[in-house]
Amino acid sequence: MRRWNGWGDESKDYPVKAGILGLLKQLIGVGTAPSDISLAEIVAQVPASHLPHHELISTDPELRIRHARGQSFADLVATRSGELGQIPDGVAFPQSSQAVRELIDWASANNLSLIPYGGGTSVAGHINPVAGERPILTVSLAKLNRLLEINPTARLARFGAGIKGPDLEAQLRAVGFTLGHFPQSFELSTLGGWIATRSSGQQSLGFGRIEQLWAGGRVETPQGSLELAPFPASAAGPDLREMLLGSEGRYGIITEATVRIRPIPELDVVHAIFFASWEQAQTAARTIAQANLPLGMLRLSTPTETITNLALAGHERAIGLLEGFLKLRGVGSEKCMLLVGFIGSQAQVQLSRQAVLSLARQHGGVHIGQSFGKAWQTGRFRAPYLRNRLWELGYGVDTVETATTWENVTPLLHSLEHSLRNGLAAEHEQVHVFTHLSHFYPTGSSIYTTYAFRLGNDAQATLARWQALKTAASQAIVTAGGTISHQHGVGLDHRPYLEAEKGRLGIGALQQLGQHFDPQGLLNPAKLYEDGQ
Amino acid sequence: MRRWNGWGDESKDYPVKAGILGLLKQLIGVGTAPSDISLAEIVAQVPASHLPHHELISTDPELRIRHARGQSFADLVATRSGELGQIPDGVAFPQSSQAVRELIDWASANNLSLIPYGGGTSVAGHINPVAGERPILTVSLAKLNRLLEINPTARLARFGAGIKGPDLEAQLRAVGFTLGHFPQSFELSTLGGWIATRSSGQQSLGFGRIEQLWAGGRVETPQGSLELAPFPASAAGPDLREMLLGSEGRYGIITEATVRIRPIPELDVVHAIFFASWEQAQTAARTIAQANLPLGMLRLSTPTETITNLALAGHERAIGLLEGFLKLRGVGSEKCMLLVGFIGSQAQVQLSRQAVLSLARQHGGVHIGQSFGKAWQTGRFRAPYLRNRLWELGYGVDTVETATTWENVTPLLHSLEHSLRNGLAAEHEQVHVFTHLSHFYPTGSSIYTTYAFRLGNDAQATLARWQALKTAASQAIVTAGGTISHQHGVGLDHRPYLEAEKGRLGIGALQQLGQHFDPQGLLNPAKLYEDGQ
Repeated sequence: MRRWNGWGDESKDYPVKAGILGLLKQLIGVGTAPSDISLAEIVAQVPASHLPHHELISTDPELRIRHARGQSFADLVATRSGELGQIPDGVAFPQSSQAVRELIDWASANNLSLIPYGGGTSVAGHINPVAGERPILTVSLAKLNRLLEINPTARLARFGAGIKGPDLEAQLRAVGFTLGHFPQSFELSTLGGWIATRSSGQQSLGFGRIEQLWAGGRVETPQGSLELAPFPASAAGPDLREMLLGSEGRYGIITEATVRIRPIPELDVVHAIFFASWEQAQTAARTIAQANLPLGMLRLSTPTETITNLALAGHERAIGLLEGFLKLRGVGSEKCMLLVGFIGSQAQVQLSRQAVLSLARQHGGVHIGQSFGKAWQTGRFRAPYLRNRLWELGYGVDTVETATTWENVTPLLHSLEHSLRNGLAAEHEQVHVFTHLSHFYPTGSSIYTTYAFRLGNDAQATLARWQALKTAASQAIVTAGGTISHQHGVGLDHRPYLEAEKGRLGIGALQQLGQHFDPQGLLNPAKLYEDGQ
Repeated sequence: MRRWNGWGDESKDYPVKAGILGLLKQLIGVGTAPSDISLAEIVAQVPASHLPHHELISTDPELRIRHARGQSFADLVATRSGELGQIPDGVAFPQSSQAVRELIDWASANNLSLIPYGGGTSVAGHINPVAGERPILTVSLAKLNRLLEINPTARLARFGAGIKGPDLEAQLRAVGFTLGHFPQSFELSTLGGWIATRSSGQQSLGFGRIEQLWAGGRVETPQGSLELAPFPASAAGPDLREMLLGSEGRYGIITEATVRIRPIPELDVVHAIFFASWEQAQTAARTIAQANLPLGMLRLSTPTETITNLALAGHERAIGLLEGFLKLRGVGSEKCMLLVGFIGSQAQVQLSRQAVLSLARQHGGVHIGQSFGKAWQTGRFRAPYLRNRLWELGYGVDTVETATTWENVTPLLHSLEHSLRNGLAAEHEQVHVFTHLSHFYPTGSSIYTTYAFRLGNDAQATLARWQALKTAASQAIVTAGGTISHQHGVGLDHRPYLEAEKGRLGIGALQQLGQHFDPQGLLNPAKLYEDGQ
């Protein structure tokens, strides 16, 4: 069964390696385990539902708790402490577009707020109910999760939007295809959620972001249905798909989605290359990203992240040997690890690998083969599990991310890390901060920064620490000219920073579209932009 | 000097080869040369301007005539016959975003309509004034045409949006870069026009459509300015760029545009492969497009277009030898020519060529080397010049285009060609129709159909013939589920067919955005969608 107060299935767990715990103790001090509330205690506090009866809706208290929060750090504090605030009055499980249509009409007639719910994996507050006068109905797409149609000639597949990553891939792989969309939340997140939040998979360099993968489908809005044809391309005015991508449930509920699929690549391998300094590594990685090679992914860690990852890996003796070897090649304490993914035919991968290694060598890169790449492939979805365990050991871990153009990547990264490293200086608390560039483009890169800090003495104190860090990081991002999110979306948490990049006029355009599709403001209030004008 | 009543510069002309004239005579009959009006005659008829005085505006009659129409077939009839209908009251030539801003404010205060004008190359009525109560000011971006900034690290360049294709490429090529956007209108069309109409270049397979190339910039709207940062990607809500792409001047005037550039590729070559039948050729071309190879372009002609192109090429003796050679290889009268463009490094091109030729051979493809590819590269922008000359010989030529998913490509193509071939049956006139697939995607293709017919006895009769054909073709496209435009945009001519793909709710969203950015409805009225709600 899925954890109600943390990431993943209860049957899955990954212990914290001694090396990483030692590193945290050394860098930020000993953590103190918090006392978490039990599910039974929290269920006992659930208030009565304000919803009228409806056959598709459950008002079961535990179910309402389980759909009340996503996976942001604030959500973790809330579920661990029991201070959940507003929870939904019920959860509906429609099984068809038609049922969603009817629920929206019923919500309109009964003056309810509706929150579309995919995998509940948002880390920006997308599915959190906000207190207001209307009863709140969470609409889970969990039962709208079937493969509806597959068109191998045009390489298109249509799914119920509530399908989860592994189910989607399993159905495609059974017939030789893949979507290739693997965000870190892959195990639990859904196709509809990816679209509504403009998700980016770890191999977006090879397979494309969800914007490139989503071809069309069905959206139910309070003003009617949209059926978007999966044209390969069109010049017929602004693209309606692009208005729904990132609309975060405010314009409609995506019920069915047609995606662009491709045959499973012959090869999908990841190689590691080490560099002696960030400057060399970043220049090499940028040059590789700009070489128009058909790569699967690029991922470049700063020196601090490289050290942290080596500690996370365990295998101390093997790591020691590696470090000795690198040192002989001139790669020492400032070493940076670049992972390069190759997908495609044998011949294509061979050609791309030659080109990449040649470019890397020009910047002092030392090729280490596939072992780190294989370890990354095995562990690519595990980081959120680690957060559960570290919480129980008294440590908070969260991530922030942005994207910017190449000349601004290192300055923004330094400013962002500085803001976090000093974010708890007033409390004389240390923060362990490290970064990788995870999504590469010819014109720039995403920046993904992880930070770890000690939990406070109680939930309020912990939340205050997190809020101070989140605010400092968000301000650093917008001040340095980054987007407030490259892959997590806006939700509640990033909303205050959106105007910095969209402008007042741009925010107004988003609001205006909301007025058009949802004049009563029923859908996911307060997310993405402020309600009202 | 630029032709006022047809395509291109007056100094450029390409004679009609005897072969193509013979083919037209044989297939649709002898044409009768029309009697065209002179520029002096038409200038003498220009009515007085209704504009108040403004230092940036000229009300010179000839200038107004030269900015009154684009390059659609209806525009050609209008300028050749003198029956222009509404013309602008004046033309403004702002030299900065600030000047555009002030012109918009001035137009708002004086209750004028504004038509943004790039290269005047629209083939869908985008820049044609529509009669109404307000005086009409055409705003030419011709003087907003400079390279403003180049960022080689992030591979971005910012230009005034009125820059024309050759000027843009010349400035980039001088420093080793290219944009790679080459629509057939390249010689005259502008960066801002490409964005406003969602243009697609002939090598979009390799370089991307304008949607992928446009990173950000400045847009002046009646409600204020938008400055869009050139993030490499973002998940921060719906993308404002995508609301402007294809907005056809209705939401604002794009004044400055930052584009994604890349180094000039080491190789840029085009090979020809012939197939014995459409079925084999289409399957081979689809398979190649779906093989995830880094190609520059694909272009596949139907048997009729292949024969027409061979006639256009001249060189009858060489063509005869080619046909003999193909016949020996089993490729006869139903032959189809596929052009495959390769861009990239020597090694990459070699690998891609091997892969393409291997796939082609599996479908009976016969490789003919680069001679047809070189001819195509030389003549790629010449087709519109040919239209001028054929008009003078009594023939009308126009094109329609769409895109659809692969399983629907051949059925739609047949239905479209059938509608045109029989479009003048009531008059017992023949229409010569041929098609190529010009833009390939893994999920589908564009379809580009050319049709030739004899001009009527006068302008009204000619226009009626064209209107009958255009209507039949547009209806065939939407009935068969194609987009009403893959690369030309909506304008006036495709507006009646837009609802078929956007739905009433989708059209309403476009109107709503217009209300937001331009509540008075000053900008380019009647284009893209109907005014008012």
